[in-house]
Amino acid sequence: MSDPTPDLDDLRRQIDTVDTRLVALLAERRDLVAQVAQYKSIHGIPVYVPEREAALLAARRTEAAQAGVSPDLIEDLLRRIMRESYSAEGETGYRCALTDPRPVVIVGGGGAMGSLLGDLFNRSGFTVRILETGDWDRAESILTGAGLVLVSVPIAATVPVIQRLQGLLPADAILADVTSRKADALAAMLAAHAGPVLGLHPMCGPTTATLAKQVVVRCLGRDEAASGWVLDQFQIWGASIVDTDAAVHDWAMARIQALRHFATFVYGVHLQEEDADLAAMLELSSPIYRLELAMTGRLFAQDPGLYTDIIFDSAEGLEEAERFRDRFAAAVEMYRSGDREGFRRRFRDVREWFGPVAEEFLAESSVLLAQAGDRVGRKGR
Amino acid sequence: MSDPTPDLDDLRRQIDTVDTRLVALLAERRDLVAQVAQYKSIHGIPVYVPEREAALLAARRTEAAQAGVSPDLIEDLLRRIMRESYSAEGETGYRCALTDPRPVVIVGGGGAMGSLLGDLFNRSGFTVRILETGDWDRAESILTGAGLVLVSVPIAATVPVIQRLQGLLPADAILADVTSRKADALAAMLAAHAGPVLGLHPMCGPTTATLAKQVVVRCLGRDEAASGWVLDQFQIWGASIVDTDAAVHDWAMARIQALRHFATFVYGVHLQEEDADLAAMLELSSPIYRLELAMTGRLFAQDPGLYTDIIFDSAEGLEEAERFRDRFAAAVEMYRSGDREGFRRRFRDVREWFGPVAEEFLAESSVLLAQAGDRVGRKGR
Repeated sequence: MSDPTPDLDDLRRQIDTVDTRLVALLAERRDLVAQVAQYKSIHGIPVYVPEREAALLAARRTEAAQAGVSPDLIEDLLRRIMRESYSAEGETGYRCALTDPRPVVIVGGGGAMGSLLGDLFNRSGFTVRILETGDWDRAESILTGAGLVLVSVPIAATVPVIQRLQGLLPADAILADVTSRKADALAAMLAAHAGPVLGLHPMCGPTTATLAKQVVVRCLGRDEAASGWVLDQFQIWGASIVDTDAAVHDWAMARIQALRHFATFVYGVHLQEEDADLAAMLELSSPIYRLELAMTGRLFAQDPGLYTDIIFDSAEGLEEAERFRDRFAAAVEMYRSGDREGFRRRFRDVREWFGPVAEEFLAESSVLLAQAGDRVGRKGR
Repeated sequence: MSDPTPDLDDLRRQIDTVDTRLVALLAERRDLVAQVAQYKSIHGIPVYVPEREAALLAARRTEAAQAGVSPDLIEDLLRRIMRESYSAEGETGYRCALTDPRPVVIVGGGGAMGSLLGDLFNRSGFTVRILETGDWDRAESILTGAGLVLVSVPIAATVPVIQRLQGLLPADAILADVTSRKADALAAMLAAHAGPVLGLHPMCGPTTATLAKQVVVRCLGRDEAASGWVLDQFQIWGASIVDTDAAVHDWAMARIQALRHFATFVYGVHLQEEDADLAAMLELSSPIYRLELAMTGRLFAQDPGLYTDIIFDSAEGLEEAERFRDRFAAAVEMYRSGDREGFRRRFRDVREWFGPVAEEFLAESSVLLAQAGDRVGRKGR
């Protein structure tokens, strides 16, 4: 600091040199990850190994602290780098959970989720056949010898499609589906097929590049042992399997999907009917509100049919929306009457109900809001 | 690939070595940034220079593409690294926008936002004095010779506190406030003080470590020229200033703050009254729903009084909440009647209203959801 202060341009050039070395380091790491991927693919080791990831992060956090670098910074950077690695690892292919795999038929394999799953099975050494709407006249030949028949069609079509499969499946084939409502689909599969039956629900959109770290729900159907390899295969792709009762799953989905998507829909309708000045709102937005606007706009950029089905196929969702409507109206009365004390009391009740989770959510969302803030000025917006 | 496959442990050791070099690179960059900070502090260059940031990112994206590294990956990493730099730059102090600064008095300087602002003025070479609830008997001496008197108290207290300042301020002092409702505060300041008046609203919570990249709204009061240096000072701290009419600002805040916080409050009440199984919901959550739950829980981890004031002080917010309630009820009728076609039609209307912004929001939120996914398995949760 007692040296003559260097020129700003000179310092910036030195920073650029450091950043260029960072690019080179990433290229070097990518080559090593490609070798790991090849090794894992040959030896059938899952893409996502939580213990390895935790150990790696802990070691680098310690080193960072010793070097006076923020441990949270190095952890954030490594998590972002590893996300890239998980998608890259799949590029060289995945191990096949079976030594002698029979064909996999994806019913609805032309859809977004069907394509993703077909691609994953393909890259794991399976022969993948697609049965789409126009293929039913050749369904018998498509299904011949299939080891797994996976139904991936819109919710409303799931039960009719399953019924149509009756009598066409090899007796020992596994019949499975990936619909977001499980009770009806499972009942239809058990009625349509006497062999192994398995209900799955990947808790991610089809736009995800990889299943690494994604939750996949399993609801038992029939002959758990026969379909064990399917779960092994999902785990090789990096997914975590969560076992749930179909009724519990459907009830939770009513809350998680139907009501939230419905409320988001109404908020979009509200903004349109108010003819809100979007540009002004964005200019005046706090990071939180920008995020909420983005989550609303996001819905409307997607397929209306998908969301119509998710909402209207859920009877539980309707009942819950009615209860939410009544609670909203009651809270508006509290607002209108100026009952600040009543509001604060309910606020504290709910905080108590959340318990320590509220603080955890505050910490978690603060990290995300800071990340959202990093993107200010990103090109294209 | 024709070489004998190296051992997995060996490859992992090589990856660890690369990551350790990454830590060293970050330490090296931090030292350069500290020198830049010193230079900026001496020469009064703002912390956040958008053009420099854009040029740096563009150059590194190009290099990444040439090296076969994802340009989005390097951009994400650099944005995260630069966030750390912005906070670090303030540590060595900021340039003072005035050559001969008079004291700054923060009325409510014991609160969270008041402390943040007091700290920033302090680190910029200002003498900072605090006027808190118990200090009114010595108010005259605290305010003697002040160049800027900044009111940072709860919304409900803002107008009474401003009225109490009448007759105590030096005639040429700037009277300013940072409340989230501007019309009433500005009117009170103009009535209480004949000198320069300035309304400000930093669009960020007081938990932000730095004002870099944060939006600060300015509503003109009186004698714009006299308070120009205050805006310069905020810009030195990295903030962007947005000029807005006080009424437009308050109307937008009703929508941005009052209604959204109110709706989040009702959703929390709803979850509590349903006695939802939080643990099961988190286990079954998609990344989107986990984020929505986190944004809900986040509210309840914060100060009930602050949110009560934001909501109940907004008459526009109440009216908008009533309109939202009616739209929600109408949409529930559509849901109950099973009018899928009507739902799809409204969905498409709203998409059209959002226009290209919907797609931008989808892209933006997908990046954030991927970042949220990176954190699965983070310690402490």
